[in-house]
Amino acid sequence: MTYSKIPLSQTVVTLCKTHNVKHIIISPGSRNAPLTIGFTHDDFFKCYSIVDERCAAFFAMGIAQQLQEPVAVVCTSGSALLNYYPAIAEAFYSHIPLVVLSADRPEHRIDIGDGQTIRQKNVFGKHVIYSANLKLDLKESDSTMGTGEMPTLKSLEQRLERFLGVQKDIQTYNESEIHDALTEAKLNSGPVHINIPFDEPLYDTVAELSINPKPFKIQNREDRVDAFEIKSFLDIWQNAERKMILVGVLQPNTIEAKWIQEIADDDSVIVFTETTSNIHHPDFFPGIDKLISPLNEEEFKALQPEVLLTFGGLIVSKRIKAFLRSYKPKYHCHVDLNKANDTFFCLDKHIKLRPNTFLAEFLPQVTHHAKSDYKTNWLTVRQKRRKKQDEYLKEIPFSDFTVFNSVLKKLPKNSVLQVGNSSAIRYTQLFQLSKSIDVFCNRGTSGIDGSTSTAIGSAVVAKQRTTFITGDLSFFYDSNALWNNYIPNTFRIVVVNNEGGGIFRILPGQKDTGNFDYFFETKHKLTAKQLSEMYGFDYVMAKDQQQLDEQLESFYSVSNRPRLLEIFTPSRTNDKILIDFFKYIK
Amino acid sequence: MTYSKIPLSQTVVTLCKTHNVKHIIISPGSRNAPLTIGFTHDDFFKCYSIVDERCAAFFAMGIAQQLQEPVAVVCTSGSALLNYYPAIAEAFYSHIPLVVLSADRPEHRIDIGDGQTIRQKNVFGKHVIYSANLKLDLKESDSTMGTGEMPTLKSLEQRLERFLGVQKDIQTYNESEIHDALTEAKLNSGPVHINIPFDEPLYDTVAELSINPKPFKIQNREDRVDAFEIKSFLDIWQNAERKMILVGVLQPNTIEAKWIQEIADDDSVIVFTETTSNIHHPDFFPGIDKLISPLNEEEFKALQPEVLLTFGGLIVSKRIKAFLRSYKPKYHCHVDLNKANDTFFCLDKHIKLRPNTFLAEFLPQVTHHAKSDYKTNWLTVRQKRRKKQDEYLKEIPFSDFTVFNSVLKKLPKNSVLQVGNSSAIRYTQLFQLSKSIDVFCNRGTSGIDGSTSTAIGSAVVAKQRTTFITGDLSFFYDSNALWNNYIPNTFRIVVVNNEGGGIFRILPGQKDTGNFDYFFETKHKLTAKQLSEMYGFDYVMAKDQQQLDEQLESFYSVSNRPRLLEIFTPSRTNDKILIDFFKYIK
Repeated sequence: MTYSKIPLSQTVVTLCKTHNVKHIIISPGSRNAPLTIGFTHDDFFKCYSIVDERCAAFFAMGIAQQLQEPVAVVCTSGSALLNYYPAIAEAFYSHIPLVVLSADRPEHRIDIGDGQTIRQKNVFGKHVIYSANLKLDLKESDSTMGTGEMPTLKSLEQRLERFLGVQKDIQTYNESEIHDALTEAKLNSGPVHINIPFDEPLYDTVAELSINPKPFKIQNREDRVDAFEIKSFLDIWQNAERKMILVGVLQPNTIEAKWIQEIADDDSVIVFTETTSNIHHPDFFPGIDKLISPLNEEEFKALQPEVLLTFGGLIVSKRIKAFLRSYKPKYHCHVDLNKANDTFFCLDKHIKLRPNTFLAEFLPQVTHHAKSDYKTNWLTVRQKRRKKQDEYLKEIPFSDFTVFNSVLKKLPKNSVLQVGNSSAIRYTQLFQLSKSIDVFCNRGTSGIDGSTSTAIGSAVVAKQRTTFITGDLSFFYDSNALWNNYIPNTFRIVVVNNEGGGIFRILPGQKDTGNFDYFFETKHKLTAKQLSEMYGFDYVMAKDQQQLDEQLESFYSVSNRPRLLEIFTPSRTNDKILIDFFKYIK
Repeated sequence: MTYSKIPLSQTVVTLCKTHNVKHIIISPGSRNAPLTIGFTHDDFFKCYSIVDERCAAFFAMGIAQQLQEPVAVVCTSGSALLNYYPAIAEAFYSHIPLVVLSADRPEHRIDIGDGQTIRQKNVFGKHVIYSANLKLDLKESDSTMGTGEMPTLKSLEQRLERFLGVQKDIQTYNESEIHDALTEAKLNSGPVHINIPFDEPLYDTVAELSINPKPFKIQNREDRVDAFEIKSFLDIWQNAERKMILVGVLQPNTIEAKWIQEIADDDSVIVFTETTSNIHHPDFFPGIDKLISPLNEEEFKALQPEVLLTFGGLIVSKRIKAFLRSYKPKYHCHVDLNKANDTFFCLDKHIKLRPNTFLAEFLPQVTHHAKSDYKTNWLTVRQKRRKKQDEYLKEIPFSDFTVFNSVLKKLPKNSVLQVGNSSAIRYTQLFQLSKSIDVFCNRGTSGIDGSTSTAIGSAVVAKQRTTFITGDLSFFYDSNALWNNYIPNTFRIVVVNNEGGGIFRILPGQKDTGNFDYFFETKHKLTAKQLSEMYGFDYVMAKDQQQLDEQLESFYSVSNRPRLLEIFTPSRTNDKILIDFFKYIK
């Protein structure tokens, strides 16, 4: 085997292995050479090389999101690691275990004018769940340093002993910090930062490890059920006639079918889901905005739940947030192993359990369903809206609205759908997806900065094929995502190009000024054609419904390269069609 | 006039005007709409729209670097502002006044599950010189909020008064914070962060300002000469026979010709410059590495200065750093208005003056020059090296080395040269440039992340035309820089494409493994052709000396679009040619 000669590098690499951190995304650099040497010479690790650190971190996040295990990014010192920050913030709010391994200069070389040097310690502030600042190994030369006087044998012995003692303390400290950081990433599912100082020489290798880390017990996260907590909630739940379950971002297949069915069997419960909830039942209510947008005050009151139960991560729908903030439930309970957001300013209880664990404990204790027409009534409304939507689709011209309808209908069964921010994910909510499709979107910070990279990272490890739907601004923003040697040929990108940030047209405010086009919508005439050519994608495009239908027929056929479909839609009518939709379905 | 209705937006915009912050780079978003409305409706401001915040901030830095005045970037809430961080760190270490105006949600909407929301307060930690966290304006509705009981007229009056008082306190606080931040950016020349919370509605406008900020005295930075300090240094200086002046990054034309001449007239002084020093005299020593690389121990001792005087910012040459750390001067004095780095671990004195102010005080007091052959001896060595270099250039094949020679020779007189990190700036040091060329490079953090954006920002405001020379990795990294509507047609990019991070080949370490090609050099087959097409650049290329000479003949001719020249060099021979060069010139 080949190892870096530097003990600290050996320790980091060895402990990553112990902690089962397998996927390592490396950005080129010299300061991080000891880590690059270590990781790439051990077949345990699957190493990836990605130059742009911003993309590298989102790519890593895509892998971690799919595998639900910590993934590491490795970079050199200086501004390099700052490019990780957007992905770190996303990982922080989406509870994704991302391990940042940043190489650093020795402390005495910081702020003295050396190149590629910044103040790296704790640089990610409040957006990491652990920040470990490792200590530099002593150098061999440190063991013989003295006062300049001729040393006696005795004094040399003493010095050597002191040296070994100090180095041992450093080693122990570093091991413990690395262990704690990796444990935290896994147990509390979030980003951690390990800052690792290295001194020259950086490229020396050895054939044997010179370190032997103490064994650590690897902890696993276990749900601890509090029977009293469950019982208390049961009392509140059973007697309510209007109960709403609202599901935020959730990993696919986290809730067993029998619990889903049991919930659906209760007429006093309506379940609001988003595409990112990854949970399905014919009696549930996807398309929240469709249902609630046209409501008047009286209808809102009829919808107002007595009890609100929420699962999972962030909610896409702004309208449901506004609704629940105005028509607060009497009791709001959130069930999630991680954080409970007080999104509606009425949170009463956070039950720290995985939703499935909770349901498995809770549902068998439910003795009766309150007599209620809550669900039936709203199913009627839902039915009406769906019918209206079908009619509307027949009436309107080619636009973002019809494009999302067509594209989503043609998604392959049993595939992964990655969606960009923000108009793409909002449109996606308006259509029903097959339950065999797993949906992901960076909703932690809802940024447009790394959706393509995340989708590609996900595609690299996902068991099913992956399609990524995005708007044009988000796509061009993260164009370096395509600078990547790992993209599977089955990967598909759909760029809905309405020549700018169409989402701003939908928001309130004056829109018919050059000022608006320029500074809000940021109108452009770019296409994805040249990027496709540059990065080896098959490129196809559509400008009307017929072309789109034709392209979609063959879009998922076997190919030797990944494929990109660019759909040009009319920027000036998209917003009106969407706004009118909500009026039409009333 | 049109203003945002929100008082805080009015205050920020008005104070930016008072402080003469003219150039505003806006990235699209909704939360920052109040600022976008304010800035874009006042002709005082020159507003730019740039989507990718990473590029926007480097672009702003390029403007600030040229104009030596604060430039503002404006973005929405969430991960958007994190993309500014690489440029902020560069601005911090390069002492460039960059004003970050980040829109934020109201405090009670943070960490409760709203989209595009992170912990923005003080998020740039130790890399800004001021961090202002502004307070949300009260809303009109706040003035009538009560306990729910029917209010009396009296109680309403009291409430209104309290409301107005609190709002006035908020207004005063915000004005003061904005003022302090902008003053700091200007006086201490560095990045500042102003975080600005806005509540909905965001798009409302008014025709009249509702605020009237208190006038503030605008301070200017003045050099304060300490006569005793100068005198003390004079004693040390005058009696030394070997004095070295080393000039780091310096703005062009900061030192008057007569002082330059006076220094050059002293035979006991040698002046080491880099291209980024922007200071020239026939007797100075540009090309530091060329001079010192081949030296043996005895020669190093002969070069060791008694007194070292340094000016300006960071030093490119690693070799001069290594040399001065090993062969320390007896006395090291740094002259700079900003920071003094203890780059060689022997700093004795920091004189806080502009170099020119210092020289104007200091040189007239010099009564005699120590008799010395220090300069003459080293000028002989310099002459020998130059002759050898000319010979070497005739012997070697087409490579990075010959390419930089050709390209730099053909630079238009009286132009700006922007150089990428890191091989590009290192090669550039090896050749003599016309003194009419002003040279810039992001040496604060020496990152590859924003050189193109910086060059373009600089080109937009520079009085002379701008050429940007970059390696391929750095160019592709910052490809979004080209997504920019402001690039002048005179702008020129030269991409030296050696198919990867050629610089890593020059560093020590094993290189003949696939592992090396892949994870260090990150070999690729990309070209800049498609990006040129996508973003409206004329594209020309060269693969050998003849093609290069031909292309350079017409490269700077008048054009309707900016132009990009891509030069393909052989990745496998570049490193040997460079290493052999240093042997050859001995």
